[in-house]
Amino acid sequence: MAVETHTHEYARALAENERYRAQFDRSILPLPPGRKLAVLACMDARLTVEDVLALRTGDAHIIRNAGGLATDDALRSLVISQQLLGTEEVIVIEHTGCGMLTFRDEDVRRDLATKTGTDVDLPFLAFPELEANLRAQVQRIRSHPWIKDVPVHGLVYEVETGALREVV
Amino acid sequence: MAVETHTHEYARALAENERYRAQFDRSILPLPPGRKLAVLACMDARLTVEDVLALRTGDAHIIRNAGGLATDDALRSLVISQQLLGTEEVIVIEHTGCGMLTFRDEDVRRDLATKTGTDVDLPFLAFPELEANLRAQVQRIRSHPWIKDVPVHGLVYEVETGALREVV
Repeated sequence: MAVETHTHEYARALAENERYRAQFDRSILPLPPGRKLAVLACMDARLTVEDVLALRTGDAHIIRNAGGLATDDALRSLVISQQLLGTEEVIVIEHTGCGMLTFRDEDVRRDLATKTGTDVDLPFLAFPELEANLRAQVQRIRSHPWIKDVPVHGLVYEVETGALREVV
Repeated sequence: MAVETHTHEYARALAENERYRAQFDRSILPLPPGRKLAVLACMDARLTVEDVLALRTGDAHIIRNAGGLATDDALRSLVISQQLLGTEEVIVIEHTGCGMLTFRDEDVRRDLATKTGTDVDLPFLAFPELEANLRAQVQRIRSHPWIKDVPVHGLVYEVETGALREVV
């Protein structure tokens, strides 16, 4: 690996991992999540899923994307989680102040096509209303033929207070 | 919300969130990630991305799916992360002992179609070789026309030791 790719941030991450491995508990964790739980959440930097739900390493599958959306890829992950690795419950978390509430797909697509000189058919899936969007994601999960008939919860995380609010 | 949906696990998560919000630091974090970093990683329960890289709330976008793959949905999230929220570096993490190394798409699809009575065109994207797969994900990110010309690193996380190994 060329030295020039070791940015400050990357070097810091590798150094921190040295510390992590030095105190790593080598008791072997099983592959299936201990709490039989899968969480689907937004990628937002202000939401640390493990802290908000007090999940420890080994407890749950964590699936995250822009918005916390039940995209085909998130459904792929959830089906694998349930059917191959035995999870029995899903918690979906979207949040206040989400960047996905702040733009329209067509505006960003036009800007990027202009800026880069290349148009790409890549839907961003921005949405104007948080709770309606969350309900739609939960519904999409519940209605998938390969998703088990298990509890699927939808929560809004408030980035201003750290609280979770039950929606569905 | 019906009482019967409050499973033991869900009730525990809500109770833990009460504790989290009670000690929540209300200093306002900005929407753009503080370290200008996006991490794409597998959903595996044994990999806690924030701990392994010593990331704190507010530092980075965390994108996760089965495998840690640069799917169209992960690319959607990365483009939003970079173009709307200013991140300038990507770390991709796959890991040893990944469930995605243990099956073939066609076998699982046939089993699920039989078990549920419904066939679905949902590729699982299982892969037989870890490092080759990781290199392909990094290449897919680097070559996307809407991804910035910034460092994209590929690391293998060893679930047996807690160590990160640089691959690309």
